[in-house]
Order: sequence, then structure tokens, then C-alpha cells
Amino acid sequence: MYVIIVYDAGIERLNKIRIFLKQYLNWVQNSVFEGELTKAEYMKVRSRLKELIDDDLDCIFIYHVRDKKYLGIEELGTRKAEIDSII
Amino acid sequence: MYVIIVYDAGIERLNKIRIFLKQYLNWVQNSVFEGELTKAEYMKVRSRLKELIDDDLDCIFIYHVRDKKYLGIEELGTRKAEIDSII
Repeated sequence: MYVIIVYDAGIERLNKIRIFLKQYLNWVQNSVFEGELTKAEYMKVRSRLKELIDDDLDCIFIYHVRDKKYLGIEELGTRKAEIDSII
Repeated sequence: MYVIIVYDAGIERLNKIRIFLKQYLNWVQNSVFEGELTKAEYMKVRSRLKELIDDDLDCIFIYHVRDKKYLGIEELGTRKAEIDSII
């Protein structure tokens, strides 16, 4: 499946979330990752994210399509280079 | 079509982008909107966003599926109330 993950978390958890997601997905922009995951990887990512976030303060949306062919992606402006460590 | 828009823009343009997108889509979280658009609305939104951003400094990703039924959405944590004006 093809996955887009957007997250809004406390600054003290952002780095952990980013480092974790980088193991499975591609960094797209600030707080956004996307990429291909197997169903097993998806379950692992979802479960680990649940552990990493503060359930009352943070929010993560995981959008997924069964196949990338169902997803149109349009990019406006200039994609930034990833900043490896913002904090 | 169902659309997800994520943006990373200079702070001086964030407010304009958010106010514009609110006319067409639902605020999801910091720098993320989603919702249903007709093809005509999509073209209008895309064209207006191009005007609003600084092409060298900002970056917007527009993800779209033909029908919302193709899109899985999973939400972790707590959805925040929209802050109407961050700036």
C-alpha cells in the first residue's frame, strides 16, 4: 500500500517521530512522509507511532491507498532538502 | 475528487494560504487540509496556490484520489481545534 503520514506533535517528540519514520518512508516536507509499505510494516509503523506520541497532545493522520496508481500527486513550488536535525 | 493538501511556506504566507484553503477544504491539522473538490475547484485551488506561494521558498503537495472510497484515513492521538490565526 502507499502511505502518506502527516504529524503534528510537541517539539520534544518531533525528532523521535521523524527518525522512526525515516526507517520506513521518504521525507517529503516538514512533518510529512510518504512511501510504500507492506501491510505488516503498516501495522508496525502505526503501533510504534502510537507509542511515540502523547495521545492527548499530538495528532497523526495516516492516509493510505491500496496501490499508488490510485493516488495523484502534484507538487507546487520547490521541494526542500531534508534537514536532518531541526532540534 | 478527494484532496489532501500539505504545505510548507514562509511564515508571512502561511496565513494567506490557510485563509484561502478554508474556503474550499477542511482544516485537518497544522498545514494540512482535506476535502472534496470538483475538477473545476481543483484547478482554481491549484492555480491560486501557485500565485500565493513563493516558488523558490515554499512547497505544496496536493494528493488526490478520484473517489474518497479509495482512500483510507487513520487518525492517531487527538485532533486539535483549529487556531484561526496563528500569526
